[in-house]
Amino acid sequence: MQSWQLPEHIADILPSSARQLESARERLLALFRVHGYELVHPPLMEYSNSLLTHIDAGLSLKTIRVVDQLSGRQLGIRADITPQVARIDAHLLSANNGINRLCYAGSVLHARPDGFLSTREPLQVGAELYGYADVAADIELIDLMLKSVAIGDVGEVLLSLGHIGVFRALAEAAGLAQEQAAQLLALMQDKDAAAVNAQVVAWKLDGMWAKAFSLLPALYGSRDVLAEARAKLPDLFAVGKALNELQAVCDAFPQQAMHIDLSELRVDNYHTGLLYAAYGKDSHEAVARGGRYDGLGEYFGRARPATGFSFDLRTFIGRLPPCEQQPPVAVAAADLPQAQETVNRLRAEGQAVVIDYGAGQNGVRKATRRLQRQGDGWQVVETEI
Amino acid sequence: MQSWQLPEHIADILPSSARQLESARERLLALFRVHGYELVHPPLMEYSNSLLTHIDAGLSLKTIRVVDQLSGRQLGIRADITPQVARIDAHLLSANNGINRLCYAGSVLHARPDGFLSTREPLQVGAELYGYADVAADIELIDLMLKSVAIGDVGEVLLSLGHIGVFRALAEAAGLAQEQAAQLLALMQDKDAAAVNAQVVAWKLDGMWAKAFSLLPALYGSRDVLAEARAKLPDLFAVGKALNELQAVCDAFPQQAMHIDLSELRVDNYHTGLLYAAYGKDSHEAVARGGRYDGLGEYFGRARPATGFSFDLRTFIGRLPPCEQQPPVAVAAADLPQAQETVNRLRAEGQAVVIDYGAGQNGVRKATRRLQRQGDGWQVVETEI
Repeated sequence: MQSWQLPEHIADILPSSARQLESARERLLALFRVHGYELVHPPLMEYSNSLLTHIDAGLSLKTIRVVDQLSGRQLGIRADITPQVARIDAHLLSANNGINRLCYAGSVLHARPDGFLSTREPLQVGAELYGYADVAADIELIDLMLKSVAIGDVGEVLLSLGHIGVFRALAEAAGLAQEQAAQLLALMQDKDAAAVNAQVVAWKLDGMWAKAFSLLPALYGSRDVLAEARAKLPDLFAVGKALNELQAVCDAFPQQAMHIDLSELRVDNYHTGLLYAAYGKDSHEAVARGGRYDGLGEYFGRARPATGFSFDLRTFIGRLPPCEQQPPVAVAAADLPQAQETVNRLRAEGQAVVIDYGAGQNGVRKATRRLQRQGDGWQVVETEI
Repeated sequence: MQSWQLPEHIADILPSSARQLESARERLLALFRVHGYELVHPPLMEYSNSLLTHIDAGLSLKTIRVVDQLSGRQLGIRADITPQVARIDAHLLSANNGINRLCYAGSVLHARPDGFLSTREPLQVGAELYGYADVAADIELIDLMLKSVAIGDVGEVLLSLGHIGVFRALAEAAGLAQEQAAQLLALMQDKDAAAVNAQVVAWKLDGMWAKAFSLLPALYGSRDVLAEARAKLPDLFAVGKALNELQAVCDAFPQQAMHIDLSELRVDNYHTGLLYAAYGKDSHEAVARGGRYDGLGEYFGRARPATGFSFDLRTFIGRLPPCEQQPPVAVAAADLPQAQETVNRLRAEGQAVVIDYGAGQNGVRKATRRLQRQGDGWQVVETEI
């Protein structure tokens, strides 16, 4: 084993990508700022019971745990920032009963990767809105998510919508026990229509509910799906509310390519309502994903309506615009005392000036621009390598 | 135990500080860039044997370790970024035999805090220069360090200089065994002059060396100390070289408040030569610290001259300039469809515009500026809260 070898699914980010990524991060935080989102930096490490707010086997398996040498209690390295931001809204910013808009950008660690090509160190960037239950808040966040993914070239973006409320309303009305609902949800998440059918038959569900559950996996497609769902699904208040919310989002983005899927329920365990995701042209994985998660803050002492999205900025490496910066200007070390004022001015203008310590290994060989004396002053001169 | 409670020496950074910190981070990375330093992002987690390049009990105790679920090998969460950057220079950027200038900004985790008031999650920011052994490289880095700490209000900065080469030259010339040298170094680091004296007497060291070691703890003060050291210390080549390097730094910063201490040897185990630190007016701890660490890359397959500094940007919280941004402009949700163009323009200009969802809890109550219709257009109007 070589000392320079990195663990699987862990990588350095080298200069060619690092500046692009940093620039994208700065532009994203500026984007969030002009939309009124305030920045928070929760810690990398917390007591693991603060990080794992819900019974969520997936998140729990991904969370790296160690024993705290100071308290003897179990610490976790965060695998998701959203529960931390919910804690901040619930506890630290609790003086505000109105809307809190918060955003963040930070690394998380996963004990196991999500997939073959996934990193174990996503750079999670996201925005969350607390304190407003209306779909207008979801629309605000979807707008911000679409603006965020435009930071990189992901091709035409498809907005995918789902709503956990439809399934939950049906499960409650059908009188499913909690374990039954969880079991059926898992089959829905696997898109296994045949197994859903077999299950509702095996449970001898009342015909109306059996039919509704069997319908769900087929209710996907363009905006027309909403009318179809309204016609075919049982007329429950919560189903109608969910469909109205989906309709409101469709109306808010009339030009946006849209995909609606009422059985698309691959969610974090804390999600409670509308689900939204942005897909790029060539990617089977969403480039950003979010949804409504009312009540997550209850764990920290304050239940609040909440909606938000996040994404891994690392997945944008290779799709970010090149940093449009001129190549550095080399200044000979011997010239530096006299050229110092010019060097300071160039740097203040944002130009990189690098000291050249002479020929051979210590020289700057790749510089195509050099600072040279011209008459009384110093000029940047284009040179050949 | 409350679910919202954080571990000791771990803290959230809330909006009031987070934007200032982000802005400082951006300005530092811009500063490094215009000096020709390229950005790298090494990972948070590596095999622990890659992170612990030297026998360094301090760093080892601070490094959080877990078992890798994929390989079964031991992983560490980085407690210091410098060895990672040395790995990148040695292995990934090894095509360049000349100078590599690299910089970074990232969080590290410490299993135990450095002191009563220390965080266990420093935000380590630093710059390193590989491939040039001359003191000119150290001077370049000291200049960059001084410019970096000027990002915050730390009062008049005192530049503190030391040089591990003086002690090492004396220890070698005196024929100290490795354990003896380590023991004496520890006494020097504790500034325990009496114990140093007692030790060299106990070992019956030759008078010249005994006198030299006893002198070291008294050789501190302003620039004059160098002349005193030259007069009083044995005339060894390596001692002369070290004093010449210290003199070169003094000459390069003629206006800088300077403190030289030949027994100030609180270093990382990888340091090999000149040591430099910046002290603020009110702080007993250095605000930034660095030095020469030639050869660290050998562990990764390529020994290289190296010098660099780093600091914890979190210690600058409270000393950073306020972000000079106007308070957000509130726009009523009902006005948004008609005012959208104006809102887009304001945001493009960098102004924060926040959607106001109406009276009561969902309204923006703190806004002192609101977007209002004036004739045919929309104007930002100052309002009273």
